[in-house]
Amino acid sequence: MKRVKIVVAYDGTMYCGWQVQENGITVEEILNKKLSELLREDIIIIGASRTDSGVHALGNVAVFDTESRIPPEKMSYALNQRLPEDIVIQHSCEVPLDWHPRYQDCSKTYEYKIYNHHFPNPLARRYSHFVYYPLDIEKMQQAADFLKGEHDFKSFCSKRGQQLTSVREIYELTVTKKEDMITIHIRGNGFLYNMVRIIAGTLIKVGLGVYPPDYVKEILQGLDRNLAGPKAPACGLTLVGINYGKNS
Amino acid sequence: MKRVKIVVAYDGTMYCGWQVQENGITVEEILNKKLSELLREDIIIIGASRTDSGVHALGNVAVFDTESRIPPEKMSYALNQRLPEDIVIQHSCEVPLDWHPRYQDCSKTYEYKIYNHHFPNPLARRYSHFVYYPLDIEKMQQAADFLKGEHDFKSFCSKRGQQLTSVREIYELTVTKKEDMITIHIRGNGFLYNMVRIIAGTLIKVGLGVYPPDYVKEILQGLDRNLAGPKAPACGLTLVGINYGKNS
Repeated sequence: MKRVKIVVAYDGTMYCGWQVQENGITVEEILNKKLSELLREDIIIIGASRTDSGVHALGNVAVFDTESRIPPEKMSYALNQRLPEDIVIQHSCEVPLDWHPRYQDCSKTYEYKIYNHHFPNPLARRYSHFVYYPLDIEKMQQAADFLKGEHDFKSFCSKRGQQLTSVREIYELTVTKKEDMITIHIRGNGFLYNMVRIIAGTLIKVGLGVYPPDYVKEILQGLDRNLAGPKAPACGLTLVGINYGKNS
Repeated sequence: MKRVKIVVAYDGTMYCGWQVQENGITVEEILNKKLSELLREDIIIIGASRTDSGVHALGNVAVFDTESRIPPEKMSYALNQRLPEDIVIQHSCEVPLDWHPRYQDCSKTYEYKIYNHHFPNPLARRYSHFVYYPLDIEKMQQAADFLKGEHDFKSFCSKRGQQLTSVREIYELTVTKKEDMITIHIRGNGFLYNMVRIIAGTLIKVGLGVYPPDYVKEILQGLDRNLAGPKAPACGLTLVGINYGKNS
């Protein structure tokens, strides 16, 4: 038996998120089905990040165990032949049998995209959130700077979160603009349930002038979800990648 | 009566091109229907560029005549309320009654996007053509330089073209790469049927090393469609905009 790691990119528009559920088709479900067909055994993958309905990924990570004699690094090609065009394996390789995509140190990188213009752009609509009113990205960056570092992010977490602690560390958090597209780039050692989308929703309120930038400090200190902005829509969010450091 | 100009952006993925036809839904047909509903009279628009099935636009242009008392500059907002999310009016304004989107000097700008990587990117797939083998963009730019200026582009035109002359002038033609996305940017005083996609297909062959860059000179001189590369797929092409100069 061997353990195989796959890096998965997907357009989340048509999926009810990553994790198998009864209400609709998920990315995990498609991968389990297509891997089981390809390898002719029952495959159940374990994903690193259970992205929400409508959220995209360029580099989510999953593992599975198999008896197959197909070389692990060839599995990406064979699997891509069977997958729909909105799910593409970017990489596959063997990892040690005790390698787990969730229980170890890693950093995750997300991007939240906002199309900020007078009219929506139909070519950007699937992968960004449209905001009509002009956003002040300098104020958004000032607010973002307060969130960098290690904090208790309880105010930025939807209730469903089951984590023991809501302390996380954000290593990078930048707000940049190119033409009409604003990108919130965020890298951290882990994120609470809906945390990136609540940060995006809060930074949008700062950009609109509804919150002053330093109100974000009060939100953090209050440890109360009701203080933060709304959860920004799923379509703007992409899990860019997961970095496990030099050992993987 | 007044004449109204609209600037239209659309994701062409789901449409059988711009022009009304029997085989499927077109952008022109949707606009005629929604404008007629909004203005409560039969509206027939005239478009500047009859983009092909699957081709996108950020700034196609059309005009129509109306008796409506809705201010022309407000029509974009009212119409966007009725349109599907893959068609968005970017601008509307009144123009003189003799203003025609096709019969006058203008320059058109197109971009052809190529995603050049080992695996497809599901977030790029709708708006770019995937090429697996590495492309040499320096050679592509060398070949592109031979196409700039005024030439008879008969070799770069599909048979259906009905134009009296196949002489056109290309003002700008650049090949740039950012991460894994190659952009062919082209601006000219007009384009023959399928011309941009045949140029893209030819430059891809140069980038692959199939044609040397200066073979493009021979293609031009031969005045024979069979000498040029294949028509590149529609999904990579976007009509960026049409510039009518200072009078409009």
